[in-house]
Amino acid sequence: MGPEFQLIEAFVAAARASPRTPAGPGDDAAVLPRGRGETCVTVDAVVEDVHFRRASSRLEDIGHKSLAVNLSDLASMGARPRWALVALGVRRGFSLREARALGFGALARKTGTALVGGNVTRAPGLSLTVTVGGEVAPGRALLRSGARPGDVVWVSGTLGDARLGLALLERPSGKEARRLRRAPRLARAAVARQRRPSARLELGVALVGLASSCIDLSDGLVQDAGHVAAASRVAVHLALEAVPCSEALEVAVPDASERVRLAAAGGEDYELLFTTSPTRRVAVLRLARRLDLSLTPVGEVRRGRGVHVRGADAGDLGGFDHLA
Amino acid sequence: MGPEFQLIEAFVAAARASPRTPAGPGDDAAVLPRGRGETCVTVDAVVEDVHFRRASSRLEDIGHKSLAVNLSDLASMGARPRWALVALGVRRGFSLREARALGFGALARKTGTALVGGNVTRAPGLSLTVTVGGEVAPGRALLRSGARPGDVVWVSGTLGDARLGLALLERPSGKEARRLRRAPRLARAAVARQRRPSARLELGVALVGLASSCIDLSDGLVQDAGHVAAASRVAVHLALEAVPCSEALEVAVPDASERVRLAAAGGEDYELLFTTSPTRRVAVLRLARRLDLSLTPVGEVRRGRGVHVRGADAGDLGGFDHLA
Repeated sequence: MGPEFQLIEAFVAAARASPRTPAGPGDDAAVLPRGRGETCVTVDAVVEDVHFRRASSRLEDIGHKSLAVNLSDLASMGARPRWALVALGVRRGFSLREARALGFGALARKTGTALVGGNVTRAPGLSLTVTVGGEVAPGRALLRSGARPGDVVWVSGTLGDARLGLALLERPSGKEARRLRRAPRLARAAVARQRRPSARLELGVALVGLASSCIDLSDGLVQDAGHVAAASRVAVHLALEAVPCSEALEVAVPDASERVRLAAAGGEDYELLFTTSPTRRVAVLRLARRLDLSLTPVGEVRRGRGVHVRGADAGDLGGFDHLA
Repeated sequence: MGPEFQLIEAFVAAARASPRTPAGPGDDAAVLPRGRGETCVTVDAVVEDVHFRRASSRLEDIGHKSLAVNLSDLASMGARPRWALVALGVRRGFSLREARALGFGALARKTGTALVGGNVTRAPGLSLTVTVGGEVAPGRALLRSGARPGDVVWVSGTLGDARLGLALLERPSGKEARRLRRAPRLARAAVARQRRPSARLELGVALVGLASSCIDLSDGLVQDAGHVAAASRVAVHLALEAVPCSEALEVAVPDASERVRLAAAGGEDYELLFTTSPTRRVAVLRLARRLDLSLTPVGEVRRGRGVHVRGADAGDLGGFDHLA
């Protein structure tokens, strides 16, 4: 038995969650039970020195984020998570203790995601490539392509916090950090948004049958709204002053136009952007109350193409390029 | 639109195969139709300077291999491939032309595998992490755990060729290369086994209901037989002199015991090892004729534990560790 088996066993043991599958891990592939709905699948990677730095990240947080960003994609489809596969890339000398720390057991258990298989290879730096599968009723998945002229554009939660959290981590003496010095609770919350994002799974499931289109905000509001506009062949008009910001962001960035710019271009917030018919306003606000989550109208869908921003130049708000 | 989208579009366009799915690529997740059977899923990565070197590998071959090694895992489960997801890691400056070359369209089309989604991130070196899903009738997947005392152990094809191919690539003036100088066709075939392995998909599907256990030979005969022995809680006895070798290996390694050692420890052959009741011998040989593929008995299953090798020390044949 080489170290490969021990490493993946340590990871799997730490990540092993709730629902069991009929066979695997341990076989060449995992065998999944036949579901009642359609299956949504997606893959995403987190890579050392691209998505995180070892110096400023705990392994527990890296593992959590690698699963959370994938669950966010399921949330935006309205799917319930079922299973995950993990491909680990590790440097020589990566230890069993480190593999265990990466295991994302808490989040997997909380979300009902069964880790059904894994793979380890040597690599020049640490990376986790996570594939997730989720279930949605046949023909009911939320797509980017369903927005119609007249629809209201909504976002969940607050935007810009993940970007603020990154600034606090990378510039501990920067102006944002200085302004938050007297509000350590707010600063910690922003850092948590960067390190341990939540996927809006409950919201996504609740939007099935309510939203006409949906996407998760990983690249930034303007860029992701552009994906919806392109897929739906419509124009998305955003009112930047309506973009919801957290108290942390208000303290850290007192200038309103700078703050809104950051919130709109920030990326990595993993909130959902969705559209609904204007007749569903009350239903959305009722849902917000039920989930104890702010759902804010930030614009509307019109005939046309592209993203149009009132109060700023859309080109300056192109968002967060994961390759940059 | 950042370069991420263009790169993955170029890759997907080149890899886009036959069967379409109801939605995605393009959405946050792909939506797969509800299948009639159970789904087998697995993930595997190929990483620059671990599994291949850019100097001795064409991008077309790297792409092919990244899919083939995953299809081999489906083959060993008896599953038919349905879909694949790809996570690409690329260096700065990776071009659209290179992304297109990596696209594994030919193999995807040939095997009925639909590429349903992808992701690109910056990385310190080129890597492809491929997830595949396949379908198998409920309760019929071939597992490692079904071998019973008295069963016959079989392998498909010939073993050791991939390792020989690696030696020819890495030591073009080595003794194996010198011995094959007058047989360039044989040398090319061995190199192709290393660069463009085949997955034994037809064989895997045909073994459902015939084999009691199955595994693909990625780590080496002795090591992979050990996985079957452990999962089935039996002993696997192998007769090394029975291990099938290609004409290329016979020419390149004239010493019989050295040759057999290489074939048994080689790894990366992606043939199948499977067990059947001894009453199914004739059925297996008939299958070999139908598939035009050699299926060779190489040992038997007995009560006990571990792998026992007649004609060598099993400890010396521990196989190929992908982390080594």
